[in-house]
Amino acid sequence: MKKFVLALTAVATLGLALPASAQFAKPEDAIKYRKAAFTVMARHFGTIGGMVNDKIPFDAKAASVNADLVATVSRLPFDGFVAGTDTGETKAKPEVWKDADKFKAAATKMQDAVAKLATVAKGGDKAAIKAAFGDAGGTCKGCHDDFRNK
Amino acid sequence: MKKFVLALTAVATLGLALPASAQFAKPEDAIKYRKAAFTVMARHFGTIGGMVNDKIPFDAKAASVNADLVATVSRLPFDGFVAGTDTGETKAKPEVWKDADKFKAAATKMQDAVAKLATVAKGGDKAAIKAAFGDAGGTCKGCHDDFRNK
Repeated sequence: MKKFVLALTAVATLGLALPASAQFAKPEDAIKYRKAAFTVMARHFGTIGGMVNDKIPFDAKAASVNADLVATVSRLPFDGFVAGTDTGETKAKPEVWKDADKFKAAATKMQDAVAKLATVAKGGDKAAIKAAFGDAGGTCKGCHDDFRNK
Repeated sequence: MKKFVLALTAVATLGLALPASAQFAKPEDAIKYRKAAFTVMARHFGTIGGMVNDKIPFDAKAASVNADLVATVSRLPFDGFVAGTDTGETKAKPEVWKDADKFKAAATKMQDAVAKLATVAKGGDKAAIKAAFGDAGGTCKGCHDDFRNK
């Protein structure tokens, strides 16, 4: 296995990295990490969806805890879209890297929407949470449409 | 695919669940989720390890951010060890369910250790962070030895 060198420029372009992240040892580690972060996000985002769509009992405190988790984890996966991770076990389209500015904008839009959801969830109003959940879901779908293969 | 029923008793026994979590639609969803949470934890725990072991530059702020992430995510994966998820794409040993009290104790020990790491990391002292990192790492290993197949 040849040494995998983190494309620092790609991370800098995305501008979403945590400070002083360790390099990924292998490209597949970066792919595994970003998918894992999305999986965790989806779980907790889905729990909120279950509540506002009456599939599980609405619990304002739980909605807020879950929304905070989603907001926290939303900052993570984009670190994993480093150069050289466009092949392998990934559905990422080449546009992630070809149109990095647009991808960054889509990521930021999602992060802003889930941050807003977390803020709204603290208020405990189910209808308001449902609206913010819908807005955030729209940002997921928009990015998936443009940057993820089916 | 037959309907997968969450074993509420298992979650209650573990006592580590978030309030009002949605059920997992399928056993493999629970397995995927818990593995994803561990993957995210390992990444950020490893970044701290890289710093205290001089593989990447030490950055006190980044160590603290990463330790907070680890502490937050450490609360998540145990929700995924519901009944009926002992087979499939998992390395979990049957002891997770057979010896649930011991598993719960091991999980709590890890959660306490990474919470302590997060507290210590706020102080910014590299040697203290290294010691707390080592203690936390020991709790990972202990649980892996007892409850995870190679």
